[in-house]
Amino acid sequence: MEQNELKKLVGQEAVKFIKDNMVVGLGTGSTVKFMVDALGERVKNENLHITGVPTSNRTAEQAKSLGISVKSVDEVDHIDLTIDGADEISADYQGIKGGGAAHLFEKIVATNSTKVMWIVDESKMVSTLGKFPLPLEVIPYGSKQVFKKLDAKGLHPKFRLDDSGNHVLTDSKNYVIDLHLGEIKHPHELADYLIKQVGIVEQGLFLDMVNTVIVGRQNGPEVIQARP
Amino acid sequence: MEQNELKKLVGQEAVKFIKDNMVVGLGTGSTVKFMVDALGERVKNENLHITGVPTSNRTAEQAKSLGISVKSVDEVDHIDLTIDGADEISADYQGIKGGGAAHLFEKIVATNSTKVMWIVDESKMVSTLGKFPLPLEVIPYGSKQVFKKLDAKGLHPKFRLDDSGNHVLTDSKNYVIDLHLGEIKHPHELADYLIKQVGIVEQGLFLDMVNTVIVGRQNGPEVIQARP
Repeated sequence: MEQNELKKLVGQEAVKFIKDNMVVGLGTGSTVKFMVDALGERVKNENLHITGVPTSNRTAEQAKSLGISVKSVDEVDHIDLTIDGADEISADYQGIKGGGAAHLFEKIVATNSTKVMWIVDESKMVSTLGKFPLPLEVIPYGSKQVFKKLDAKGLHPKFRLDDSGNHVLTDSKNYVIDLHLGEIKHPHELADYLIKQVGIVEQGLFLDMVNTVIVGRQNGPEVIQARP
Repeated sequence: MEQNELKKLVGQEAVKFIKDNMVVGLGTGSTVKFMVDALGERVKNENLHITGVPTSNRTAEQAKSLGISVKSVDEVDHIDLTIDGADEISADYQGIKGGGAAHLFEKIVATNSTKVMWIVDESKMVSTLGKFPLPLEVIPYGSKQVFKKLDAKGLHPKFRLDDSGNHVLTDSKNYVIDLHLGEIKHPHELADYLIKQVGIVEQGLFLDMVNTVIVGRQNGPEVIQARP
């Protein structure tokens, strides 16, 4: 099957988990785009009352154009289910996110969700995390000192720069440092170390967080119950 | 002795710890202002080569006007000594900072300093921390959810607002939530809990950090060696 056809099927599978009157966190990315399309169709055809909580302007625009009503994370009481992509998912369903420099807002929405679902193509499924560089969101003030500390600890940091060589800025106007680790043997320890470093706002390990993973396999979407 | 006279003596005592060619972190506040004045005088009279790393624009302007050369935290290799104020210091020399909403930058500079000194008037010395509300720097996106979580945990959060009722913004354009705790029995546990909350950038407990405290007592400055 073609890549886009796979992603479309995954998106259609994902929205089956959405019920009337749910508040749904909407992630960002190419697979999520197909999911939001499929949700828009269900909302129209079945006259569902869904509130979407988007993690980016791009998704907000798409949802609104499809007639899905949209609120910010601070305007809702709770979020029933968040559906988002992931950059890497390990065999024990831990994840890395932040390739799009949006992992802070994505983690804020996920943390405030009753259930979390990740929808990915099968290239994202790995045995151990770390081939994908681990993104950190870092306060610009003092970021060179943070970089030096990470470097001295052997964590292979690189500032994320755009094509003009300027710092990529997050929505909160912070810098991104990617850790080129190859393999992350102890993700909980690493997460604990990183979040305690002064100047690191958030790190891209999403641990013990996802409940359901839907993987786009060649023979169709595979639904995995990762956690109850 | 009058309050300002006490602060002046504390400032003069503090700068005795500064040696030629040092890189010195310069905090912010009324006692620090007297210290920077005293440093300016020493620089002029003794022709010292001091690099100041200020934690605020106000201190940067003052230092420059006195002929102290100023660099940002990212332009220096290291900081030998940071001299700053504190809002509360406990009997075991743990501190709360952030009354001026600058605890993130202050903690970044302190963390990157070989030695840290706090200079305060004696009203800041307490047996147990917590009467002074504990400041948190919080990402605006999702801040109401963070507030709800802190409230549910009985941590008595209040958003810090200005006189017009708008959110006070930090230099990084984040919100401030103050925790009105009365007494903080287990500061390390609390710090650990707070820093792990998604959306909290930094919290105002400065633990195991200060080496020297200078207190403005009625009979003159008291120099305390808190940690080696």
